[in-house]
Amino acid sequence: MNEFKLDSYGLQKYSNLTRSINEEYINIHPIQRGGLLTPEAFKALIHYGDGYSICDFCLKGRIDEIENPPVMDFLKDMAKFLNVDHVMPTAAARDAKRIVVEALAKKYPQRKTVIVDSLAHYTTYLAIESKNLKVREVPNTGNPEFSILLENYEAVIKNTIKEEGKPPLLVLLTHVDYKYGNYNKPKLVGEICKQYAVPFLLNAAYSAGILPVDCSSDLIDFIACSGHKSMSSSGPIGLLGFSNEYYENIMKFSKIQGNISSKSFPNKICTFMGCPPVYGAPLVTLMASFPTVVKRTQKEYIAEERKKINYVIDHIKDIKGIKILGKLPKIHPLTNVKTDCFAEVAKNHSRRGFFLREEFKEKKIIGLAPGISKEIKFNTYGLTWPQIRYFTNSFREIAKKYHII
Amino acid sequence: MNEFKLDSYGLQKYSNLTRSINEEYINIHPIQRGGLLTPEAFKALIHYGDGYSICDFCLKGRIDEIENPPVMDFLKDMAKFLNVDHVMPTAAARDAKRIVVEALAKKYPQRKTVIVDSLAHYTTYLAIESKNLKVREVPNTGNPEFSILLENYEAVIKNTIKEEGKPPLLVLLTHVDYKYGNYNKPKLVGEICKQYAVPFLLNAAYSAGILPVDCSSDLIDFIACSGHKSMSSSGPIGLLGFSNEYYENIMKFSKIQGNISSKSFPNKICTFMGCPPVYGAPLVTLMASFPTVVKRTQKEYIAEERKKINYVIDHIKDIKGIKILGKLPKIHPLTNVKTDCFAEVAKNHSRRGFFLREEFKEKKIIGLAPGISKEIKFNTYGLTWPQIRYFTNSFREIAKKYHII
Repeated sequence: MNEFKLDSYGLQKYSNLTRSINEEYINIHPIQRGGLLTPEAFKALIHYGDGYSICDFCLKGRIDEIENPPVMDFLKDMAKFLNVDHVMPTAAARDAKRIVVEALAKKYPQRKTVIVDSLAHYTTYLAIESKNLKVREVPNTGNPEFSILLENYEAVIKNTIKEEGKPPLLVLLTHVDYKYGNYNKPKLVGEICKQYAVPFLLNAAYSAGILPVDCSSDLIDFIACSGHKSMSSSGPIGLLGFSNEYYENIMKFSKIQGNISSKSFPNKICTFMGCPPVYGAPLVTLMASFPTVVKRTQKEYIAEERKKINYVIDHIKDIKGIKILGKLPKIHPLTNVKTDCFAEVAKNHSRRGFFLREEFKEKKIIGLAPGISKEIKFNTYGLTWPQIRYFTNSFREIAKKYHII
Repeated sequence: MNEFKLDSYGLQKYSNLTRSINEEYINIHPIQRGGLLTPEAFKALIHYGDGYSICDFCLKGRIDEIENPPVMDFLKDMAKFLNVDHVMPTAAARDAKRIVVEALAKKYPQRKTVIVDSLAHYTTYLAIESKNLKVREVPNTGNPEFSILLENYEAVIKNTIKEEGKPPLLVLLTHVDYKYGNYNKPKLVGEICKQYAVPFLLNAAYSAGILPVDCSSDLIDFIACSGHKSMSSSGPIGLLGFSNEYYENIMKFSKIQGNISSKSFPNKICTFMGCPPVYGAPLVTLMASFPTVVKRTQKEYIAEERKKINYVIDHIKDIKGIKILGKLPKIHPLTNVKTDCFAEVAKNHSRRGFFLREEFKEKKIIGLAPGISKEIKFNTYGLTWPQIRYFTNSFREIAKKYHII
């Protein structure tokens, strides 16, 4: 018998896992702002912490049909919020994308190409690779805006049809990209896809929950969302929204049968391995944050968030050696800044590229990638105005300290 | 723009999600006992509640290489605990099984059959179905023991080879099954698999974390574990353990490249969609409970748990119309009892089959499936001796109330 034991160091290491970043610092981490829990979600987290906590009153063996807590109602309300026919929970947005690619690859085994914008998230590429498919990118305008020219989707679709004799399997647009936080209006791509009868997936991992989404108006067939990225949820929790047209491809009920036991599982959805693996706290936090998410994606709130990030940019963009990358003015607060001035400082600094993160950390601002001073990413989503001004001033003070201004 | 708003009922419904089952009741739910959080895990849950909370100090873009919190160390220690070469986190045990089936289907495209015990979990069948493979079951002895005769694995492997001209893709054994809680020693199946050079997966969702596991001694190539089922973790979190032999099939690094951007992701693992979707609280709770899990799978502790469940059984098995299903004495505390006596009561009871759960609930015991009185499942794992005696007495009192004894 394997008699593995932990020594006292191991016991200490695992028994006292704590984190207080969001209590002690202003967190500007590019992927963390949208996932900070609401007070309602925090309360729900504590109540639903135990494993399988959502399954107390599961009567039908299907997580999407649980009535208490109100998962079934929630999925319907979420579908209305996204204005899409159906919503199912998934482990993450990446899992939603994988599921769509897999379902379509089964529906259209002859189609071999997925078209994506050239700022797509790496998990979009991995979803394509997982089914041995080819990727074709829609170009961007390059430095400094890196803007995806959406009308080019048509040319890439046409080329695919011409060269492969088949339409692409899927067209994907990243609603807001991970690198520059550029926002893309989906409607034009939706119209092009309809014209060529190609399924259209919007990767809304950075946007849904932060900015409004309207799948029906924008002719979106599939939408991938992330609770821990943009809906104030504990990770991991994602959502897959899909239209009626693809209901049977996504909600594939099991048909397998045991050759001896004759067991079968006609109520279980093959695509999601029965219940998608989201049996606990993360889904409940997503539900608890939903009222806040609905509110914060309304006009007044998003206008205010835009003002904040553009305030920061307006106060740093004229510093010599600073260049804001991506489209301006910002719509989404994820921001990428080329900081040649700080890279210059790093050359002769005893802490090299680490100095910049450390300067911010000393000012109780955290979330910059360690060791990097050439190009920084940050996100101001949900910061208060005093925090916005403090962050802006801190940025300028660091520039002053090193005689940049 | 989609202007969905929640009415006051919706606001109320989602903003106040609470649960107090484990505070107010003795919970004997068959799949919940092993997933109750330890105090250490509960503390960690509160600290790591926010989305992406594990990624503060991610330097390499890989969750399995994060050093703070000590994910990297933990995966190594967990591998020692399971005595397997490598461990990766997954969203759940079902996801671990899906990944193994997918990886092997790529390695051996000619092999079309997966052999499983006839008490395998439904997600085992779905993993097989997801790759359009065939299932062949190893029979059990039927009522009342439902014992899998492990030596029969050899005949089923031989038949597969004979009829299909190819070995099976994979052999799977359920270490402890979901229905009767029967425990199977893996070694004989491991030896048979080695003899026929067939990969062997142990589904340890109900066992690893409750009973000892030793992959190396038992010749196990793959092991699927569940944190929320058996390792005192918040859901969803699973583990996939695998041997060196299959390292390259499981840890498939990405090779895709953008045709315009030239972007590539050679550090990301395709099989897991980059980082497996486990970026937050559930993985941290698994780590925080690990010292307890190591301790509770040692001899003294498991002997005590066996005594408890067998005490319950010894005090109810002679009631007329009660029949314990599955192998006796119990090794794992998940128990299935045929309760003809209660089914008889239900016939004339105003609450029909619901009466039994309600009688227990009145005695502050919860976890029986609603509406079912013919056959009940419960799990005593981790109950204190006073709770064990109280549950046993309650069972007998209900039998007395309805003149069964």
